[in-house]
Amino acid sequence: MGHVIREGDDVLLFLDRRRTYLVRVERRAFHTHKGVVQLGELVGREYGTRIRSSAGVEFVALKPNVRDHLFKMARGTQIIYPKDLGLIMIYTGVGPGSRVVEAGTGTGALTSVLAYYVKPSGRVYSYEVRPEFVEIASKNLERAGVLEYVELKNKDITEGIDESGVDAVILDLATPWLVVPHAYSALKGSGSFASFSPTIDQVVKTVKALREHGFVYIETVECLLRGIRAEEGRTRPETLMTGHTGYITFARKGLRT
Amino acid sequence: MGHVIREGDDVLLFLDRRRTYLVRVERRAFHTHKGVVQLGELVGREYGTRIRSSAGVEFVALKPNVRDHLFKMARGTQIIYPKDLGLIMIYTGVGPGSRVVEAGTGTGALTSVLAYYVKPSGRVYSYEVRPEFVEIASKNLERAGVLEYVELKNKDITEGIDESGVDAVILDLATPWLVVPHAYSALKGSGSFASFSPTIDQVVKTVKALREHGFVYIETVECLLRGIRAEEGRTRPETLMTGHTGYITFARKGLRT
Amino acid sequence: MGHVIREGDDVLLFLDRRRTYLVRVERRAFHTHKGVVQLGELVGREYGTRIRSSAGVEFVALKPNVRDHLFKMARGTQIIYPKDLGLIMIYTGVGPGSRVVEAGTGTGALTSVLAYYVKPSGRVYSYEVRPEFVEIASKNLERAGVLEYVELKNKDITEGIDESGVDAVILDLATPWLVVPHAYSALKGSGSFASFSPTIDQVVKTVKALREHGFVYIETVECLLRGIRAEEGRTRPETLMTGHTGYITFARKGLRT
Amino acid sequence: MGHVIREGDDVLLFLDRRRTYLVRVERRAFHTHKGVVQLGELVGREYGTRIRSSAGVEFVALKPNVRDHLFKMARGTQIIYPKDLGLIMIYTGVGPGSRVVEAGTGTGALTSVLAYYVKPSGRVYSYEVRPEFVEIASKNLERAGVLEYVELKNKDITEGIDESGVDAVILDLATPWLVVPHAYSALKGSGSFASFSPTIDQVVKTVKALREHGFVYIETVECLLRGIRAEEGRTRPETLMTGHTGYITFARKGLRT
Repeated sequence: MGHVIREGDDVLLFLDRRRTYLVRVERRAFHTHKGVVQLGELVGREYGTRIRSSAGVEFVALKPNVRDHLFKMARGTQIIYPKDLGLIMIYTGVGPGSRVVEAGTGTGALTSVLAYYVKPSGRVYSYEVRPEFVEIASKNLERAGVLEYVELKNKDITEGIDESGVDAVILDLATPWLVVPHAYSALKGSGSFASFSPTIDQVVKTVKALREHGFVYIETVECLLRGIRAEEGRTRPETLMTGHTGYITFARKGLRT
Repeated sequence: MGHVIREGDDVLLFLDRRRTYLVRVERRAFHTHKGVVQLGELVGREYGTRIRSSAGVEFVALKPNVRDHLFKMARGTQIIYPKDLGLIMIYTGVGPGSRVVEAGTGTGALTSVLAYYVKPSGRVYSYEVRPEFVEIASKNLERAGVLEYVELKNKDITEGIDESGVDAVILDLATPWLVVPHAYSALKGSGSFASFSPTIDQVVKTVKALREHGFVYIETVECLLRGIRAEEGRTRPETLMTGHTGYITFARKGLRT
Repeated sequence: MGHVIREGDDVLLFLDRRRTYLVRVERRAFHTHKGVVQLGELVGREYGTRIRSSAGVEFVALKPNVRDHLFKMARGTQIIYPKDLGLIMIYTGVGPGSRVVEAGTGTGALTSVLAYYVKPSGRVYSYEVRPEFVEIASKNLERAGVLEYVELKNKDITEGIDESGVDAVILDLATPWLVVPHAYSALKGSGSFASFSPTIDQVVKTVKALREHGFVYIETVECLLRGIRAEEGRTRPETLMTGHTGYITFARKGLRT
Repeated sequence: MGHVIREGDDVLLFLDRRRTYLVRVERRAFHTHKGVVQLGELVGREYGTRIRSSAGVEFVALKPNVRDHLFKMARGTQIIYPKDLGLIMIYTGVGPGSRVVEAGTGTGALTSVLAYYVKPSGRVYSYEVRPEFVEIASKNLERAGVLEYVELKNKDITEGIDESGVDAVILDLATPWLVVPHAYSALKGSGSFASFSPTIDQVVKTVKALREHGFVYIETVECLLRGIRAEEGRTRPETLMTGHTGYITFARKGLRT
């Protein structure tokens, strides 16, 4: 009751850790390398239910959470990893009720996570200069069920931020240092700044701009995630690992004297 | 207006990254190694304001966020680090409205973060077997402003969980594997399990129990955070680094067939 | 004079960091994806010379060093990485003149490095239980020019070590803990033990055995290597990284009282 | 016989992994926090022997190896760590018989390791611009027993290298990029270059200079070492870890066409 799968819901079909599929439940067949799954059979069953494909392979129908939506939103584009997003959430304190400015929107991956955490009373103002991405993001955010908490703006954030008194400004774009003065104006006193950048050159420029514009508590970190294979008698870390996604720079707005 | 410091508020006095002080604003003097700060002077000023100590050293009065409260809650006890908490939030999908079972409460550090993110409509059921910690946690949660979203329970979670149909069970205790069967019963289908453990032995036992009890999507990770000193001409990672806090094991509840 | 390429020499044809070829210089054509290289043209030229393929692509003919030989010795089998070997050399102090017992030989990768460093007056006693590998190793060691410093033994080292008074015992096999008592007998007082193992379970058993058999200065480490792309304006660590090769356990022989 | 401690020898008194003492064996008392050790008692006993202090605490008298000498040579100055040295040895192929140019000498730590591995027929040409360090290094190298393989030069290597046709040039100084052209001239074709630098800015400049001067196979790495506490039932990585020592850049000399 309440926690059953309905037609039109998204489910995450789980085969194993590397093979999960985000699918819409409709009266249709879903083809996988492990046989056909009749999605219609899921209707009315509880989330977490197991279903067999035509090849007799078991899938589990999970309710997609914020991370699952995030992964499926990537589709070939570079997105901020969950590990980095978790850090951004905790370090900036973005949470229920927060008003957050974000750029660039891209496919909406970062946006979706921010929107998920600021709901129900908060709001995400998301800037994107490329119109085609605004459209893609809009669809992705709707699918993730968080579009109503987001204001998508087809604007170049390096030219200015419309909002003021916001709790946080969070950036994932090529030239974050150009946004630093606008972020300062938009933030309320003590508000949080975060910027994700793949290269150290971007970090150096951004930190310099932050120092010059009255930001305090400036810190840059990188976060490395390593998988562990835990099995009695042969426990060891995973052989392959992502060695780098990006650096994250944090700061807080101190008022000028 | 609205964002001003009032008597009785907590502020985070920021000197530099390693020296921050969480203090209650009252008409009193606060003594630091860098002189005396007259806290009363902060009343009525905006958050982010700068204030000079008697020694002429500048402090910034920041509004403490979820991470700042967390650090100050540690006070000599081992707490889960923000980096690990961020990961737990994103991977489990705990967010506004979630109902979460948590153990052990300890000083309330993990509890405070969960409570911050499930508000306003969610709830954290926090188990702690040692009565003295329930009291400490209660005070800390009140100070962090999230006590109303938490139900503190002076109970041994290895003997059972009272709640059912919860969204997530999150553990930070010595014997998580003993809680696995109770977690399974308490979770709704597809719900999330997370456990933080310092030793690999705890991980191996927990993963084994998860496999035996019908959990799926089991994965263990460790998260390494490295600070970067970004300064033109002499950018380099920090020399010292925390090499280990703990492993985090995640899983989802699959229904038994 | 002296440093010229001669017929029959091995050269490392370098195209870029990921594409290097260890080839014997003969009057023949060497086919690559970037055209044909006439190896005979290299005869009489200095090491480090550049040569163009039929497709006009430039290769550099480097003199293969110990690491280059090592990589080419792998050929699909798991070998100890250079980073781990470097650590083993320095921590054990194996160097010119050392007498070293080693197992298992495998394709001779570890053996070749040990032999390279103990020459000219030292010696490596290398144990291998599988006869087919003894043969492969023999060929590889001859090609690397260090066979004369090695005694290849087709024996099971878990049943005993023939040598005594050796400077170091270095292991890369599945059950190092079974070799610990033999290593103790074979080593001279204060001699060095090192063992490379992929799983933590192997480490725990080996460390336990070392403690029980009078070894001191026992320590286990893991070594992570990360590549950096250094280029003005876009410097960043490499995206992919090997997250785990193995743990290395070191110890020294303390005499029993 | 042969492997006994003699008066005048250096021994490494081992108490535990964090407390080791490099002492000269003489007929005198050595004072530690764990009581007095009568060093004279060691004379004539075998290396690895255990000796009790006046407080009844056991020490083990180990024969110092190349790494032990290295650590004791540090004495408050920054030295290249063994992990980085191991990598440098293997990647450059410096070994018995190699002729190596090195700078700056400093206290002789890196020099001592290079000298240890090039002996007996190789040679290290070590440049140091500060005369006081040449003297310190001389004493340290003598104590480590490798002075005869080293030529200490009180010269500024950024102004030129006297030697030619060397196998490797290895740098640990503030401005390695200024040495790159001299290194190119000094190296024989295909010879190895290695440079250790704490900051990324040094790396970027050095890599740029290497590219401009005809070097090939240029790569930069960083090496992270993590200690593991292996004990049944409570195995875990060490809490504290060195997060950064420096970057190492490697290259090979390709001839100009």
